[in-house]
Amino acid sequence: MKRLFINATVATMKDGAEVLKQGALGVEDDKITYVGEVPEPQVQEQFDEIIDCSGKAILPGLVNTHGHAAMTLLRGYADDLPLQTWLEEHMWPLEAKFTHVQVQAGTALAAVEMIRSGTTCFMDMYDHMDAVAHVVEESGMRARLTRGVIGLCSEEMQNKKFEEAVRFATEWHGQADGRITTMLAPHAPYTCPPEYIKRFVEKAGELKLPLHTHMSETVKEVEQNVRDYGVRPVEHLRQLGFFDLPALVAHAVHVTEEEIDILAEHDVKVAHNPGSNLKLGSGIAPVTSMLRKGMRPGLATDGAASNNNLDLIEEIQLAALIHKGAQLDPEAVPALTALKMGTIYGAECLFLDHEIGTLEVGKKADFITLDLTGAHMQPLHDVVSHVVYSASRGDVVDMYVNGQPLMVNRELLTLDEEKIRHEATRAFQALLQ
Amino acid sequence: MKRLFINATVATMKDGAEVLKQGALGVEDDKITYVGEVPEPQVQEQFDEIIDCSGKAILPGLVNTHGHAAMTLLRGYADDLPLQTWLEEHMWPLEAKFTHVQVQAGTALAAVEMIRSGTTCFMDMYDHMDAVAHVVEESGMRARLTRGVIGLCSEEMQNKKFEEAVRFATEWHGQADGRITTMLAPHAPYTCPPEYIKRFVEKAGELKLPLHTHMSETVKEVEQNVRDYGVRPVEHLRQLGFFDLPALVAHAVHVTEEEIDILAEHDVKVAHNPGSNLKLGSGIAPVTSMLRKGMRPGLATDGAASNNNLDLIEEIQLAALIHKGAQLDPEAVPALTALKMGTIYGAECLFLDHEIGTLEVGKKADFITLDLTGAHMQPLHDVVSHVVYSASRGDVVDMYVNGQPLMVNRELLTLDEEKIRHEATRAFQALLQ
Repeated sequence: MKRLFINATVATMKDGAEVLKQGALGVEDDKITYVGEVPEPQVQEQFDEIIDCSGKAILPGLVNTHGHAAMTLLRGYADDLPLQTWLEEHMWPLEAKFTHVQVQAGTALAAVEMIRSGTTCFMDMYDHMDAVAHVVEESGMRARLTRGVIGLCSEEMQNKKFEEAVRFATEWHGQADGRITTMLAPHAPYTCPPEYIKRFVEKAGELKLPLHTHMSETVKEVEQNVRDYGVRPVEHLRQLGFFDLPALVAHAVHVTEEEIDILAEHDVKVAHNPGSNLKLGSGIAPVTSMLRKGMRPGLATDGAASNNNLDLIEEIQLAALIHKGAQLDPEAVPALTALKMGTIYGAECLFLDHEIGTLEVGKKADFITLDLTGAHMQPLHDVVSHVVYSASRGDVVDMYVNGQPLMVNRELLTLDEEKIRHEATRAFQALLQ
Repeated sequence: MKRLFINATVATMKDGAEVLKQGALGVEDDKITYVGEVPEPQVQEQFDEIIDCSGKAILPGLVNTHGHAAMTLLRGYADDLPLQTWLEEHMWPLEAKFTHVQVQAGTALAAVEMIRSGTTCFMDMYDHMDAVAHVVEESGMRARLTRGVIGLCSEEMQNKKFEEAVRFATEWHGQADGRITTMLAPHAPYTCPPEYIKRFVEKAGELKLPLHTHMSETVKEVEQNVRDYGVRPVEHLRQLGFFDLPALVAHAVHVTEEEIDILAEHDVKVAHNPGSNLKLGSGIAPVTSMLRKGMRPGLATDGAASNNNLDLIEEIQLAALIHKGAQLDPEAVPALTALKMGTIYGAECLFLDHEIGTLEVGKKADFITLDLTGAHMQPLHDVVSHVVYSASRGDVVDMYVNGQPLMVNRELLTLDEEKIRHEATRAFQALLQ
């Protein structure tokens, strides 16, 4: 199947060649085969379908680099509380009741939400991950998945979880036409003993899979690391060999300049979660310093329970706004950088930038279209600025992943939204009984 | 005309009685006549029209307490620059070319955008205000309008502007079935000599109109005030008698605890502009301290050129998020407070709280409905949390002002959106020639 999308503003996100004002995108099967000017009629004839995108922008699909999709079920359940209280007294007790039923229902709800807001690829770290993988398979989305493991338990349980994480990562890596890839993820330095983390590092090296963990999200957690292990989390993970492999850390809110140097030196990827970090009162990550040191952080929503949605356009906007305000520097995180954080930098964070993140010939055809005709998009003379500062999720019109349409004209093609909504409500209510 | 809206989640925003889970709202002509449980069928029969709002929330219309509507034309024109550079080198030169044509076109565009995102009432401070008033008249919106005056000019010009501001305020106050009210507004302490500000204060007292100005938006401006007048802006305005009358100040980003005490003591209203303050790198206003001291700040978008949209739902969300993050306090500005800032506190800032801001019998029927069926609104057990943290402008479905429908099922009833979009583009292009 060869499709040609014409007359669009094409925001390629390729360095130095970001925007084509009146462009076209050609797709064959799962790949991008053409990006450029609208071709001559005789060239157009070679395509099976010509899709007119007048009044629309085409962008790479957004990439959500850290989250817990099934936590949509706990959205708004306990707001405005500190991270530890929120986790220990509210989230964990309810999450302990989660079975594959909740994870399936919550992840399906998340998939609807992510598709509707332009996210084509997401990173998920949770439990009952087979249910998550099945939703990815069915929805047509792309995902980097991992069984996140908390090691505060008996050795027997630790072993069981470890085996499960490895089994999941091995079984699902490359599945769903390659849309599913995996990684290994000890939950955090404060929830996993060092030797347990080390086992994951070794296994990841063996399986050639990237590593993921939460790191330095709160002041309290950093202090605890110093108390327990005599070093801050970055040095702690460095000593455990975590940064010798491809690794993605979520948050990195409380990292010093020296720690950023270590992360940059080891090419550690950072998932910046502005909304969640703000909402939980965790703080504002030193993203401008990371950028200055050559790091390319991605963006993430975290779970919906601490956000409270999975809208990456909001995160792009927050990333473009909050660092300016916090540092009294209107030049911090310019619009184009924020949009790259939501696309190509995100792809790099998930070690998928050879496949996605920009619109380039040879990459996978993962892209979205945005309506540019809304009042809030006028006058239309800087599409990047408008997408970052003016747009909202409601502007996302179409989505393709691997060349397949998941949403056309805001109609979902792979998921039954109403059924998913009802199942999510039922699965949530079951938790309260 | 008597309309009854039934089966809605009614978020009244009335202190202590915020949300009715399965409620109804009755409207007769321009007023609210009923708020409560869904009435019995024989009571329903007394209404001319029954509107089923299943799956929707009804909220007071959002109130935008500070802005320059016509600046929509400059949206995205010069991003990521410091306030003074942005104003002096980019905004003011283009704005100098604005005639009533640009103001009419830009304000109409703003009206479309505000209606679509739930704002029923806005405060506008600009030039060519007759054009703004005509748009308000035609659109059916409610507005508090003022000719914002910059006094850095000859005495003759100062006099001319003063007369014009007074003429506008006098002529339009109470017009459009009372939907238009006015105020007087010297632009800012740094753009108006003290004696010029004093003339506005005296005239406002005489006309019994509130005052408005920009205050303490940037560090630089506060320093300049100290250099020029020996005191910081709050003390400066206090000495000029500005706070002896009903007064609204925009921004108040750089105010000390002592200055907040002065503002609180004089019951000065504050328009908090989180998005604009972040984007221009101005900083984060000490809103939590204001709230602690009993102040009730409203929310505002500022002009679209520094935001870059007029979406008050975004400002509500920013207000609920940024103070938590900046102060490492997840309990700062809880969801309910943020929503009140966008409704009743905003009404108080515009001195219109006797008429709008809550859903109460006797108040004007200014309200919106929000779709609660989106995936991002599930599970639906805390509407206030969801509106603040999860919703977006696309969820706004209907709008009524003074009991008249301005938008029904996302269809605009008073404005021709396509025509407005084209006129805005044309008016912007004329500026570049």
